[in-house]
Amino acid sequence: MDEPNSPHRRMQPLPVASVRIDDAFWSPRIRTNRAVSIPHNLHEIRRTGRLANFLKAAGKMPGEFEGIFFNDSDVYKWVEAAAFSLATNPDPKLEADLDEVIAAIAAAQQPDGYLNTYYTLCEPGNRWTNLRHRHELYCAGHLIEAGVAHHQATGKRTLLDVAIRLADCIDGVFGPPEQGKRRGCPGHEEIELALVKLFRATGKRRYLQLAQFFIDVRGTEPNVFTAELTDPNEKFDPSVYQAHKPVREQTEVVGHAVRAMYLYSAMADLFAETGDRSLLDALERLWVNLVSRRMYITGGIGSTARHEGFTSDYDLPNESAYAETCASIGSVLWNHRMLHVAGEARFADVMELALYNGVLAGAGLDGATYFYVNPLRSRGGIARVPWFGCACCPPNVARLLASLGGYIYSQSDDALWVHLFIGSTAKATVGGQDVTITQETRYPWSGGVRLTIDAAAPVRFGLNVRIPGWCGKAAIALNGANVRIYRENGYACIRRTWAAGDTVDVSLQMDARLMEANPHVEADFGKAAIMRGPLVYCLEEADNGRDLFAITLPKRAELSTEFREDLLGGVAVVTAPAVAADEAGWADTLYRSRRKPSETPRTITAIPYCCWANRGVGEMIVWMNAR
Amino acid sequence: MDEPNSPHRRMQPLPVASVRIDDAFWSPRIRTNRAVSIPHNLHEIRRTGRLANFLKAAGKMPGEFEGIFFNDSDVYKWVEAAAFSLATNPDPKLEADLDEVIAAIAAAQQPDGYLNTYYTLCEPGNRWTNLRHRHELYCAGHLIEAGVAHHQATGKRTLLDVAIRLADCIDGVFGPPEQGKRRGCPGHEEIELALVKLFRATGKRRYLQLAQFFIDVRGTEPNVFTAELTDPNEKFDPSVYQAHKPVREQTEVVGHAVRAMYLYSAMADLFAETGDRSLLDALERLWVNLVSRRMYITGGIGSTARHEGFTSDYDLPNESAYAETCASIGSVLWNHRMLHVAGEARFADVMELALYNGVLAGAGLDGATYFYVNPLRSRGGIARVPWFGCACCPPNVARLLASLGGYIYSQSDDALWVHLFIGSTAKATVGGQDVTITQETRYPWSGGVRLTIDAAAPVRFGLNVRIPGWCGKAAIALNGANVRIYRENGYACIRRTWAAGDTVDVSLQMDARLMEANPHVEADFGKAAIMRGPLVYCLEEADNGRDLFAITLPKRAELSTEFREDLLGGVAVVTAPAVAADEAGWADTLYRSRRKPSETPRTITAIPYCCWANRGVGEMIVWMNAR
Repeated sequence: MDEPNSPHRRMQPLPVASVRIDDAFWSPRIRTNRAVSIPHNLHEIRRTGRLANFLKAAGKMPGEFEGIFFNDSDVYKWVEAAAFSLATNPDPKLEADLDEVIAAIAAAQQPDGYLNTYYTLCEPGNRWTNLRHRHELYCAGHLIEAGVAHHQATGKRTLLDVAIRLADCIDGVFGPPEQGKRRGCPGHEEIELALVKLFRATGKRRYLQLAQFFIDVRGTEPNVFTAELTDPNEKFDPSVYQAHKPVREQTEVVGHAVRAMYLYSAMADLFAETGDRSLLDALERLWVNLVSRRMYITGGIGSTARHEGFTSDYDLPNESAYAETCASIGSVLWNHRMLHVAGEARFADVMELALYNGVLAGAGLDGATYFYVNPLRSRGGIARVPWFGCACCPPNVARLLASLGGYIYSQSDDALWVHLFIGSTAKATVGGQDVTITQETRYPWSGGVRLTIDAAAPVRFGLNVRIPGWCGKAAIALNGANVRIYRENGYACIRRTWAAGDTVDVSLQMDARLMEANPHVEADFGKAAIMRGPLVYCLEEADNGRDLFAITLPKRAELSTEFREDLLGGVAVVTAPAVAADEAGWADTLYRSRRKPSETPRTITAIPYCCWANRGVGEMIVWMNAR
Repeated sequence: MDEPNSPHRRMQPLPVASVRIDDAFWSPRIRTNRAVSIPHNLHEIRRTGRLANFLKAAGKMPGEFEGIFFNDSDVYKWVEAAAFSLATNPDPKLEADLDEVIAAIAAAQQPDGYLNTYYTLCEPGNRWTNLRHRHELYCAGHLIEAGVAHHQATGKRTLLDVAIRLADCIDGVFGPPEQGKRRGCPGHEEIELALVKLFRATGKRRYLQLAQFFIDVRGTEPNVFTAELTDPNEKFDPSVYQAHKPVREQTEVVGHAVRAMYLYSAMADLFAETGDRSLLDALERLWVNLVSRRMYITGGIGSTARHEGFTSDYDLPNESAYAETCASIGSVLWNHRMLHVAGEARFADVMELALYNGVLAGAGLDGATYFYVNPLRSRGGIARVPWFGCACCPPNVARLLASLGGYIYSQSDDALWVHLFIGSTAKATVGGQDVTITQETRYPWSGGVRLTIDAAAPVRFGLNVRIPGWCGKAAIALNGANVRIYRENGYACIRRTWAAGDTVDVSLQMDARLMEANPHVEADFGKAAIMRGPLVYCLEEADNGRDLFAITLPKRAELSTEFREDLLGGVAVVTAPAVAADEAGWADTLYRSRRKPSETPRTITAIPYCCWANRGVGEMIVWMNAR
């Protein structure tokens, strides 16, 4: 992430390697990611033949291709996760593992740079014939991202050069017909954002141009996907692939949610590099559609399993919510980019919401079990599992956690930006000078944050601290004295000449609050959810028994918060008085004339949604019945 | 239905031919059934090649089998519907159509009596090799029912003899191994109840014995279905076929709902003939499980499309409700039989509920469009259609409506029973004498019923009139003077010597009432539904606009009833004051801290659920949000 600044970015993120996280909430998760998840993922990648596919394609091992045609990408995402981890935590064993995996990948590369073990082993003559379904360009994208991350973390070019050769191979095939190339774009977006990264890492503009070509050709006529259909009976819905119309004309988030997020991320990147305003206009429309009509309160997106994606406005069922872990990760990626081109905290708000809820719920506290799907209601019977046949989510979580440092701060010419509240120390260059910023906080359990600036000499710059959208009341003290907050685009801006040891204390009022959904959302009508800070809460059977839907919150529910050191690694629980319907008078009756309800008072205990399903299998509910 | 009385039946139904219906609610429906539905069904049966399959199997027409392997059954059900119709309404054109169809059926019968056009045309060597899926015995059952009905309606033996030859063929194949026959039973129950009918029509005990064999062998080890599996990868769940354990040991209604209803109907028939108490005990357990945990308020049953059937206790989702029309018909059939062996009105209550709601909603008022699936909530987009690839429902509705007269009355040695309130005149023999009973009523719009007895000479018998379970207060006047009601098993019993012209006036208090569901039913929690008499009501978009889920009934909703001659052929609508959530202050917000709701007062208008979707496509809701 040590990228050159782009002319149309308001700021650029501090790179992963510049940020050291030391945080009560996140450090245990990052440690678990390093100590458990990354080795666990490598073990699964080996166990399931994913790594062997490369050795087979290289002719170094006998046997047939194993698994699903896009399995290469899981290996690449693991490499990226491991590389990010190395960037902040040197680990010779991990570096050796990485070298071994990269050697296998490199060996599978064909003489012309092509690299995809499924096609090499199964359909060597059929390269690029099924762009809509077969994920060749998607896998290539993840390889490129991994190559860039590995180079930046270790300085080694072993994988970056493989990525460059593959990118050059692809660049030789796809492009404007007037250059003798063919029209085409990936059925699953990903390579577009990867090519922008490769452009930034190498300075070679043709990678940016190829990304732009893929983005521009999408959804234009003749449709590149329908053109490749050979079976007249194959049903193909281009909107699932965001290819129903040119990207700049799209107004609603549609289709496969992960695909959509990766496309929009690339569009934001392309705007950052080109300043093409029509891209930003489309992204703004799509973003408003997403956050005002098609997003769960957890930041989860994509409400149906049918195409793993979006349906219609306000269609947000809780029990059958898909809300794929990878889609929440995609939302983090897109919102992080929107934040950097727009400089507006509303994007960081959604990024934070997705991160703390939609993404985190996807992984168990053990670091070795995962949810692919993240419902907001369970009648029991749902548990995380160690791996999936389609295993996109586990290494995606691992690479996000390993690169979390890259999401906390940004720098611009004359300002340092604080987006997330995570205990950490970061080095930046701002106002022409090296500056260190240290953040101490118990967030998300409390709203107090202390920022300390350190610089060799006094330096003038703006410190822009995000005031979260969820926060009704915030206060800021500079070196112990309250100051009036000057807000711009959701950031408290303190512009001054900073001296070493200057402190800024941010106090974000963080009361548990009852939330309601827009009355168009049928699934949540007459219901309420609990949030505190960025965290969505839920009731679990372990604390509240069964039939959670039959618990009703009173009209004015007094919510109380208590930190429980012993629970789930330490969490703030929220309790409230409520009533539970009881069975008095029902016996074997299924329907009867309506009577005064028979109810039992009950204190409910809510835990953060991101921690659910860590105490065995049981019921869970986010949206509770409410008077 | 002019069956010999069985020793273990408390009563026997008056046959279809003995009852003449003249009723404001039902006569138009029965006329439409005769004038529109029966011709429409025949047209579709011809158009879709169902009839041609018989001619092809007979070698009288070239060509291949068309459609699904169980399509013969739709033709048989049409014959049964047409025969019932002829029993009360002579119609030379229909009789000629019937003769033509029956001739085609008869021509397709093989020399040994076997008859199934799919197997004859497609897999002539594979008879009886796939009992679990291929419906040979199911189709045979419908042929036998049709043969019996046709014989009873017309006196002709043309189809009955075909049915007897087929039954004899089957009886030669299946039975106790010690008789040199093979173990087996139908994957889709139906032939069991048909064989009991054939026994009753012919007096030949071996048909009853074969029915008993099929019932007894079901679910016993070795399982006859798993034994025939040839592909080790075929997943087979015997509970979908009620074959997971012997029928007498079953305690929960499981699997495919129509299959279950037809099985239980046959078990009740078998009890009626044999007095085998273990059957009745099992049926009692299954019935309690059904009506206390697995039935929609509409009487609809089977909550999932997955296996068109039952799931778990209290799992009754509204929008995704399956509630197949045929399953409601099956419930009518089973409850009618339970009523006759038990003599208890609770079975008539469920029969009536399923008939007026679950079944009637399955057919459009036009008589030519159908629902296969009957949800209790629609967000719009659902409309009845003229026909289905799997077209079990249309002719099933037709045969039930054509035989409705057979469900109203019963007779026992010393009593005449009135189960349903339908204007009609019926002839019975009771107390050794011919008696005519005339019923005048505006039911289900009002609760007043006048019964008039006519007999050549005074005759002593009990008149047992059902007091519906939904009715809180009932009164009875004999020849104009109120009498104290003596109730037995839900029937008001008036035992006396009747003279010609004696009248009994029954007054059933029929206020619209708000219903609630058992608090274990998550889908209905915090909600209320409207009923009036046996009718479930619903809100439609045509009367109440969109977003029906966002309408809330107040704590004490005053329900008013008004008869609307102009609406839907004349219906009583129920109106109530309510509030609708409005969008004030929401704009593009999707979630916010909970506030006092912004609501607009609104009068809602509810129509009978059985009449929904007759005014174009729109939203519908049964269970409304309620304070």
